[in-house]
Amino acid sequence: MSDIVVILPDGSELSVPDGASVEDAAYEIGPGLGKDTVAGVVNGELVDKASELHDGDDLVIVTDQSDEYLDVLRHSAAHVFAQALQRLHPEAKLTIGPWTDEGFYYDVTNVDLDMDDLEDVEAEMDAIIEEDLDIERELVDREDALAKYEDNEFKREILETEAAGDDQLSFYKQGEFEDLCKGPHVESTGEIGAFKLLNISSAYWRGDEENETLTRVYGTAFASESDLHDFLEMREEAKERDHRKLGQELELFSIDETTGPGLPLYHPNGKRILDELADFAKQLNLDAGYDPVETPHLFRTELWKKSGHYENYVDDMFLLDVNDEEYGLKPMNCPGHATIFDQRSWSYRDLPVRYFEDGKVYRKEQRGELSGLSRVWSFTIDDGHLFVRPDQIEDEINLIIENILEVFDTFGLDAEVALATRPEKSVGSDEIWEQAETQLRAVLDDSGIDYGIEAGDGAFYGPKIDFAFKDALGRKWDGPTVQLDFNMPDRFDLSYTGEDNEEHQPVMIHRALYGSYERFFMVLIEHFNGKFPFWLAPEQVRILPISDDQLGYAKRLKNRDFGDFRVEIEDRSWTLGRKIREAQEDRVPYMIIVGGDEAETQTISVRDRKEREAKDVEIEDFRAHLEAEREEKREEPDFLDE
Amino acid sequence: MSDIVVILPDGSELSVPDGASVEDAAYEIGPGLGKDTVAGVVNGELVDKASELHDGDDLVIVTDQSDEYLDVLRHSAAHVFAQALQRLHPEAKLTIGPWTDEGFYYDVTNVDLDMDDLEDVEAEMDAIIEEDLDIERELVDREDALAKYEDNEFKREILETEAAGDDQLSFYKQGEFEDLCKGPHVESTGEIGAFKLLNISSAYWRGDEENETLTRVYGTAFASESDLHDFLEMREEAKERDHRKLGQELELFSIDETTGPGLPLYHPNGKRILDELADFAKQLNLDAGYDPVETPHLFRTELWKKSGHYENYVDDMFLLDVNDEEYGLKPMNCPGHATIFDQRSWSYRDLPVRYFEDGKVYRKEQRGELSGLSRVWSFTIDDGHLFVRPDQIEDEINLIIENILEVFDTFGLDAEVALATRPEKSVGSDEIWEQAETQLRAVLDDSGIDYGIEAGDGAFYGPKIDFAFKDALGRKWDGPTVQLDFNMPDRFDLSYTGEDNEEHQPVMIHRALYGSYERFFMVLIEHFNGKFPFWLAPEQVRILPISDDQLGYAKRLKNRDFGDFRVEIEDRSWTLGRKIREAQEDRVPYMIIVGGDEAETQTISVRDRKEREAKDVEIEDFRAHLEAEREEKREEPDFLDE
Repeated sequence: MSDIVVILPDGSELSVPDGASVEDAAYEIGPGLGKDTVAGVVNGELVDKASELHDGDDLVIVTDQSDEYLDVLRHSAAHVFAQALQRLHPEAKLTIGPWTDEGFYYDVTNVDLDMDDLEDVEAEMDAIIEEDLDIERELVDREDALAKYEDNEFKREILETEAAGDDQLSFYKQGEFEDLCKGPHVESTGEIGAFKLLNISSAYWRGDEENETLTRVYGTAFASESDLHDFLEMREEAKERDHRKLGQELELFSIDETTGPGLPLYHPNGKRILDELADFAKQLNLDAGYDPVETPHLFRTELWKKSGHYENYVDDMFLLDVNDEEYGLKPMNCPGHATIFDQRSWSYRDLPVRYFEDGKVYRKEQRGELSGLSRVWSFTIDDGHLFVRPDQIEDEINLIIENILEVFDTFGLDAEVALATRPEKSVGSDEIWEQAETQLRAVLDDSGIDYGIEAGDGAFYGPKIDFAFKDALGRKWDGPTVQLDFNMPDRFDLSYTGEDNEEHQPVMIHRALYGSYERFFMVLIEHFNGKFPFWLAPEQVRILPISDDQLGYAKRLKNRDFGDFRVEIEDRSWTLGRKIREAQEDRVPYMIIVGGDEAETQTISVRDRKEREAKDVEIEDFRAHLEAEREEKREEPDFLDE
Repeated sequence: MSDIVVILPDGSELSVPDGASVEDAAYEIGPGLGKDTVAGVVNGELVDKASELHDGDDLVIVTDQSDEYLDVLRHSAAHVFAQALQRLHPEAKLTIGPWTDEGFYYDVTNVDLDMDDLEDVEAEMDAIIEEDLDIERELVDREDALAKYEDNEFKREILETEAAGDDQLSFYKQGEFEDLCKGPHVESTGEIGAFKLLNISSAYWRGDEENETLTRVYGTAFASESDLHDFLEMREEAKERDHRKLGQELELFSIDETTGPGLPLYHPNGKRILDELADFAKQLNLDAGYDPVETPHLFRTELWKKSGHYENYVDDMFLLDVNDEEYGLKPMNCPGHATIFDQRSWSYRDLPVRYFEDGKVYRKEQRGELSGLSRVWSFTIDDGHLFVRPDQIEDEINLIIENILEVFDTFGLDAEVALATRPEKSVGSDEIWEQAETQLRAVLDDSGIDYGIEAGDGAFYGPKIDFAFKDALGRKWDGPTVQLDFNMPDRFDLSYTGEDNEEHQPVMIHRALYGSYERFFMVLIEHFNGKFPFWLAPEQVRILPISDDQLGYAKRLKNRDFGDFRVEIEDRSWTLGRKIREAQEDRVPYMIIVGGDEAETQTISVRDRKEREAKDVEIEDFRAHLEAEREEKREEPDFLDE
C-alpha cells in the first residue's frame, strides 16, 4: 500500500498510508493527539475523524481545545434536541439540523411547537445529557437507509440527491435515536456542558419559497454554563442594539415591506451618516490616487454575458424587457468600470489606473431572507477597481490594505483577515495563480497582520483577501475584500502598450473599504449602540434653553458660533430634566445648556451623553474642541474627559 | 347676436361679436392693427387669423413685429420647400411639415434625396419666392380633401384621426401647390427674406419606431439675410461646442450604444465636474435648511399607482417582474420622499420639512430620440420636496427662487422665467388654484423678475414656475422648475397637527436647482465650450517642466504647494511648445511652467488658457489667488488680469 502526503497547518508534510483516516493521521503525529482527536478540518471542511484522507489534503486536527470543537458540540446538541423532540412528539419528522455561528437549529415538521413546548423539550434534553449516551457513527446500506425513512420524504430526498452516489450512508446513533448525518459529533451526550433553546421560526425546505414550510427551532450550546451565560447576556445586549430597532428609534432608515422589500429609505439622520461615510471614503480614495467615475444601473444583458455575470448570477439578477431586448440591473460595478477603461488607449506609464464609485448594485435575495440593512435587494458598494501591471500588484495591494486598516482603526473595529485561495472551479493558469497567491501572501506577511487561510474560498477569477469586522460585542461581520482578477481583463480584451511597444493585459484588482454601505452602517449602528462618534452624529449638539428667555441667545449660538456643526435647539416648553433625558435618548453627543446666567456672561454649560457636565465654558474653547474632535474623528465625546 | 369677451395680454377684456375671428378682434382694437395682423395666439396656441374666437379666450395678436412672426414665416418656408420638391420630384409624398425652434422640417417619402439634391430644391425655392405667390387659405369639404389624397396614406390618416371631426378642412394654396394645413402662414412667398436647407435625416411616421421610415429635411428661414447669417454662424459655433464631441475629446463621458443606449458612463473628468456641482447644490440646500434623504430606485407598482405615476407615466416607465409582482424603476423621486415624510407624525411647528436628494430617475424615451446627455433613459435630478403649511408657501418659494437665481448667476447663465397656469385637466378646487397662482404671481412680482405666462401649461396637480437657461450662444434650454402640488399630499394622506390640534394636509412643493444633472452638464459643456471655471475644471493646473531636471521640483509643487488642487504633471518628453498646445486643447485653466531658473529661485511661471503669461511668480501668491478663485467660483481664470 503506497503512502499519501497531507499538509499540516504549519505547512509541513505528513506521510500516511493510503486509506488513512483523520484519526489515523493524528496517531501518526502522536498517540496523545490521536486519543484527543474529536474531528478534523480537511481542505477547510469540518469532518468526522473517521473520514478518509487523500493525497495533498490540507489537514487540521480538531480536539476539545480547538475553535472548531464548539461547532462539533453544537452539532451534537442538535441531535440531542431531535432525540428529545421524538421522545415527546414521536410524530415529528426531522429534516436537517446543522450547527451555525451562534449555535444550531433543527428544521422539523408534522409537529406543533410553541415556546412553552420548548421548555418540556429542554427538560428532556437535560435528561438525555444526564444519561450520557455514547454517540456512535455507523455505516448503513442504501437500501436499509431508505427503509428507515419510509415515512420521511425529506430524508429520502437527501438520500436521492446529495447522497445519491453513496452506497453506504453515515448515521449517528445515541441510545434509541439515530439520524442520517455526515457528522462530526462529540463522543457522548454528557459532553454538552450547557445549552438553551432560543427561538422558533418558520423556514422553507431547502430555503426555497416554493417548497414546504417547516418549523425551525434555534438553540445554542457551550462547554460550560458560564460560556452560555456570557453568550445570553451578549445576546440581550445585541437585541437592545438591533439596528432595525435603533434605525426606527433614531429615525435613521425605514423599509416599506409592501412596496419596497429589501429597499431601504434613508431618513435625514441616516443619510447624514451615510454622507459622512461617503466623504471619508472619497477623501481616502482621492488621496490614494483614485479617480471618480459613475456608471449606469442598467445594461443590456449583452454586457452581463460578456462579463460572465449572466452565466453565474442570472438567478440573482433583476431582469427587465425594454423594446424586446433583455436588460439587467447591475449586480456588480466591475463591468461598467472595465467599459470606461476600454474607451481609450493606455501606455504602461499610465498604469495603475484606479477608479472608484459609490455604486448601487441589485441582487434578488429570497424575500424571506431579507432583514433590515443586513440582507437587502439593493445596496451601495464603495467600489474600487484598479487596472495594474503585474509588477505593480504588490505595491497596490499594500496601499489598499493600509487604507482598509485605517477604516477599521477609525471606527474602533477589530479586523479578522483571511487569504482565500484557488477554488476547484477557476480560470487562469497554474503559474498565474501561484504567482498571485504568493504575492498576496507576501504582502500579508510583510504587513505583520495576523491572517488565516480559507483554502479554496477564492473567487473563480482570482485569490482574495477577506476582512471581517469584529464589533464591540465581539461579533464578526463580513467586511471588505481585495480580489485579484485575471478573468475580466481577458473577457473585455483590455490592454495597455508596454515599454516593449507590445500590447499587454492589465490585471484587475477589485476592492472596497467598507464593503457595502448598508452592511457597514448596520455594523456601526450596533457597534456604537447608536452612540455615533461626534463626526458621524446626525445631530452633534443640542442647545437646551432653560426658558424661552434664552431662545435668542440659543439661536445666536446655533447660527453664528456653531454654524458649521449640526446643531438643533430644543424649544419645546419642557422642564430641563425632560429636555436632557430626551437628548440622552437621542444619543446626541453634546448638550449646551443656557440659562439666564449663561446668557448674561455669554458662556455656556456643556453636558455630554455620558452625563458629565461643566459650567462657565467659554464658547470659543468648546468650538475649538469640537473642531478637533471632528477633524480627528474621535470615537467618544471627550471635552469633559479631564 | 350676443357678444363674447376675450382677454388681451395686459389683462384687459375686449368684447367682440360671437363668431368673430382673430382678425376681426384686431380690427376691433384698431384698423391699423387689423391690417397688420398675420396670425393670433389663442390660449397659448399659434393659429390662423381666420380662427374663430370663443368666450374667455386669451388672445395675442401676431404681426410681423411679434416674436411669433418667425414661426409663421418658417411654416410658410416649409410649404415653399414642399412646393419646390414637388416641382422637381412630383412622385414625392408629403406628410407633415411644422416649424421648430430653429426653423422647420418636412417629412417626405417616396423620393431619394441627398445633400446635392437639396441644392436644386433650394434653387427652385428661390424661384418660388421670386414669384411672390399669394398664400391663401381655403376650406375644403371632407370628401374633396380625401379625393385629393387618394395616393397619400399619410395625409389620409391625418384626415381620419386628428381631423376626424371636421367637416371642412383648411388647405393653404400658393400657385399650383396646396397642402392640408391648419396654418398660420404669411401672406405671400415673397415675404420669406432668407432661408437655407440644413440637413437630411430619417424619422419615423408619428415618431413611432413601429411605423414607416420617412425622410426628414431640415431647413430654416428668416426675415433677412443678416439674421440667417448670424444664425448659421451661431450654428457653426454650436457644432464646435457640441457636448457629444467635447465629451469625447475631454474624456467627460461616453455612451455605449449597444449595451447602454441613453445610459451615460461618466469618466473621471466628467465625474469630477458632477461632484463639484453636487457639492455646490448640497451646500446651498443645507444652508437653506434642507435635510438629505435617499430613496430606492425600484418600487412595487403599488406605490406608483398610489402616486398616480402609473396612470400617467406607465408607458415611459421601466417595468420589471419580481416574483410575479410588478415593479417599476422610479420615474420621479416625489413618492419616495412622501413615503419618508409619512413615517412619523408632525406638528405645525415642525413645518416646513424640506428633503433633498440627488435622485436618479428612469424614463423610457424612444431609442431614436436619445441624444448625448440631452435625451437619456436615466438622469439624476437634484430633487427637493417641501412639505409646508399654506401660510408658508410664499416664503418658501421666495427662498427657492433666490437659490435658483444664485445658480444661474454662478454659471453666468441668463434666466428666462415663466409662470405656467392651470391646465384644462387638473385636480383641486378653483379656490386653491386661484390662491396658488396668486401666491406664485405675487412672489414673482415682488422679486422684480421679468416673467412670461404659459397659460394652461401647469402640471395637473398645481401651477409651476419654469426657468430656462440662456447660454453664451443665446440658446434656450429647459431648466429647473418650482411646482406647487395639492394632489400628492392627498393621495398619500399626509398630515400634520395644526395649532388647533386638528389634522391638516400640507402642501407639497417640488423644486430643483439644476433640473437634471445630465441636461445641466450638457448646457455647461456647450456654454463654456469646455473651458470650465477653475472650481469646476477636472484638471485645474498642469505643471510643465521644461526638462526632466525639473521633475523633482514639479512633484514638490504638485504634492506640497498645490496639494489640495487638481494638478497633473506633463512628464512626456515633448517640447515646451507642444506641452503648452496640449494643455491649451485640454482647456486646463492654468499652466505652471518650470525651468532651471524657476527651480533655482523657487518661483514659477504662470500661463493661463487665454495665452497670457507671467514669470517670477511667488508660489504663495499664486496659491492664495487660486484659493480665492475657487472659493468665489469665478467664471474665468483671472490671475493674469492686471
